[in-house]
Amino acid sequence: MTAPEVTVPEVNVPEVNVPEVNVPEVNMIDVIVGKRDGRALRTHEIEWFIDGYTRGAIPDEQAASLLMAVFLNGLDDAELTAWTDAMITSGDRLDLSVLDRPTTDKHSTGGVGDKISLPLCPLVAACGAAVPQLSGRGLGYFGGTLDKMESIPGWRANLGTTEILDQLREVGAIIAAAGDRLAPADRRLYALRDAIGTVESIPLIASSIMSKKIAEGTATLVLDVKVGSGAFMPDRDRARRLAETMVGIGARAGVRTVALLTRMDTPLGAAVGNALEVAEAVSVLGGGGPTDVVDLTVTLAREMCAAAGLDADPGAVLASGAALPVWERMVRAQGGDPTAPLPRAALIETMYAPQRGWVTRLDARPIGIGAWRLGAGRAHRQDPIVPAAGVVLHAKEGDWVEQGQPLLDIHLDDPARLPAAREFLERAYTFGPEPLPVPPLVIERIA
Amino acid sequence: MTAPEVTVPEVNVPEVNVPEVNVPEVNMIDVIVGKRDGRALRTHEIEWFIDGYTRGAIPDEQAASLLMAVFLNGLDDAELTAWTDAMITSGDRLDLSVLDRPTTDKHSTGGVGDKISLPLCPLVAACGAAVPQLSGRGLGYFGGTLDKMESIPGWRANLGTTEILDQLREVGAIIAAAGDRLAPADRRLYALRDAIGTVESIPLIASSIMSKKIAEGTATLVLDVKVGSGAFMPDRDRARRLAETMVGIGARAGVRTVALLTRMDTPLGAAVGNALEVAEAVSVLGGGGPTDVVDLTVTLAREMCAAAGLDADPGAVLASGAALPVWERMVRAQGGDPTAPLPRAALIETMYAPQRGWVTRLDARPIGIGAWRLGAGRAHRQDPIVPAAGVVLHAKEGDWVEQGQPLLDIHLDDPARLPAAREFLERAYTFGPEPLPVPPLVIERIA
Repeated sequence: MTAPEVTVPEVNVPEVNVPEVNVPEVNMIDVIVGKRDGRALRTHEIEWFIDGYTRGAIPDEQAASLLMAVFLNGLDDAELTAWTDAMITSGDRLDLSVLDRPTTDKHSTGGVGDKISLPLCPLVAACGAAVPQLSGRGLGYFGGTLDKMESIPGWRANLGTTEILDQLREVGAIIAAAGDRLAPADRRLYALRDAIGTVESIPLIASSIMSKKIAEGTATLVLDVKVGSGAFMPDRDRARRLAETMVGIGARAGVRTVALLTRMDTPLGAAVGNALEVAEAVSVLGGGGPTDVVDLTVTLAREMCAAAGLDADPGAVLASGAALPVWERMVRAQGGDPTAPLPRAALIETMYAPQRGWVTRLDARPIGIGAWRLGAGRAHRQDPIVPAAGVVLHAKEGDWVEQGQPLLDIHLDDPARLPAAREFLERAYTFGPEPLPVPPLVIERIA
Repeated sequence: MTAPEVTVPEVNVPEVNVPEVNVPEVNMIDVIVGKRDGRALRTHEIEWFIDGYTRGAIPDEQAASLLMAVFLNGLDDAELTAWTDAMITSGDRLDLSVLDRPTTDKHSTGGVGDKISLPLCPLVAACGAAVPQLSGRGLGYFGGTLDKMESIPGWRANLGTTEILDQLREVGAIIAAAGDRLAPADRRLYALRDAIGTVESIPLIASSIMSKKIAEGTATLVLDVKVGSGAFMPDRDRARRLAETMVGIGARAGVRTVALLTRMDTPLGAAVGNALEVAEAVSVLGGGGPTDVVDLTVTLAREMCAAAGLDADPGAVLASGAALPVWERMVRAQGGDPTAPLPRAALIETMYAPQRGWVTRLDARPIGIGAWRLGAGRAHRQDPIVPAAGVVLHAKEGDWVEQGQPLLDIHLDDPARLPAAREFLERAYTFGPEPLPVPPLVIERIA
């Protein structure tokens, strides 16, 4: 291989060292074989691959082979940084330095009943930060933050860059769709990974999440990495590795990043389902709502404020009611009516306790699958969500119930969906003669 | 999942147990994830994949992901058997039981100057066996057995099943192209593996070779697994594992299989290049030719005769000249003229010894690359071969040379190819003050 001949034109240029031009030729087979055989890929190879795949110059089968090799042989820190950078460079990176407030955002790996973004974003804005929460549709099957927000009549997720900046300036918080220009490489790679069985890879998940968060322009970031039966990553050690990997990527990219590992064995709050969760979020903003949702919201808000360098007390701000008008402005700015009634289910069925006893376990997983089967999630990526469908829990872990007492309400539009959902919901509760201690929500903090 | 309802018709059938019908549904993601996570795939999953991919029902990117997972996590014996069986079942399996002679064949993993099949097939036929050597175009870049034979004017590689059977009956030996119906799954999988960096996988190579050899219908098989710088698999341990894997597949398929690991550090014989190798093969059949080629031909012939249960002495048969007329009948039966002059190069350049001394090393690899650059091999799969191009060695390992003595002749049509070829050819020889012992060709026998 020889370097292309470079002629430096003889004109008056400022005195800088002309870097040695050496763009090595890259061959996809060499890249695949290198990773297959455990070699660390070089930055220019990663850049070449991400760019080529995004442009459609590298065929799916070659990318698939490389992704499986990455899945099995991993990426080291330098590779991860290059991979994430290349995904950011595939699109635009928002410049939020024009704002007069410090920026901070939160990302959650998702869990059953996780509506925390909804009260959190306006709360942190009320504390003085700008919160630019741009979300992808993510895994696509379960209702994500955008799906929850879309149950608000009139609300729209898709905004242009100017609208995003205006809203951040005027309202201080936004929840919106990450547009096509935010890490487009991730979109292509994610769709491929989903089709070829390489989703659950720590470096690929970490670079996917972090490329979008870094591209959205936030200066600081708090990650809520869920652990347990209702989490994408049930195992604590793997969740910790994911958290550490993302914190490392953030640090190397100059985005101050903190991660909390939080418990996702049992649903968060009482509401599971899109419109039901919006209602719960509004009650939290109004000073009510389930204790666990309030606690996690305030805990994450404290981390975000600390990361952003704000001397605020989110617990006091929430109690003061100051976050609710920010929420209403957020909703209105995106065409939504915060006073309009939310969609309601055509049918509400109650499930009763089959025996008396203490609820010793309320498993997030069957509740999540049950709600998903009611229509709160999608069977296929293109399916619509049923906004009103879901579950409201009346008994949670640590509660005492009498036989025949309501355990949960099932909200649904189509009665045909009931049996398949009940099959799972009925398995969610375990009862015992003694109460078990309810462990704290936050397992570990990684910074 | 429920089994389809089976109605056993009420007619008089011989008393057999009706097997429980249970065809489980297979999902490609489950298959990929299973292999990715180190699970042994089930036979029905492998059958489903090979069939689906051959029919075009499974997209390349999913197959690519699975193949990389197989590359990195391997296949156990049961998986290998299922994989090979499924590739055989993707096409037709020849039935050679109609022949009145025992069948035996040889397969070589290929090396520089390896023209052994050409004298071997007629020799073993002259010993009383039927030799059904159906070859793929193989790796496609270097001249294979079919390319060598095609330098004979008029000779054609493609025959129908009836022609193959007729020739085996009448001549006793055939070298022909494995048709489209012989393990077509292998053709598709091989092309994909070539594009996605998963060629060098022992289970995938083994099942690829063995599926074609088992499908061609031979009852016994001798494998020549090359080891060394000029071999596809330079490392002895890996070559041994490949040999053991293939012997195991053969045994489980009822094809008695023996493997020899043979040395491929230095070219076999003096001729490297298609027409040049045919000429050398003919001289071996006529009682001459280089010792190493004669020795390996006779050694492999002995193994094939023993495997076929023939009490013959191939050394004596070769010396008697009885194999040459079989060769001539083989060539004629496929339209070739064994008396016609072979293609000759437009140009012959000689390379001379730069010093006097003993040839302590003649490296197969630069000789192979040099010949390939002269046109004996292809740069791209579709490129034509230059039949007359190649190299004839005048000095081999263990020979004494004086300075200025001819080392080799370079045969070529296009003088523009000379510099790039010489660059490698000049590196092939090492000289020393003392001769080094030349190690035996056969390293190990695996049965």
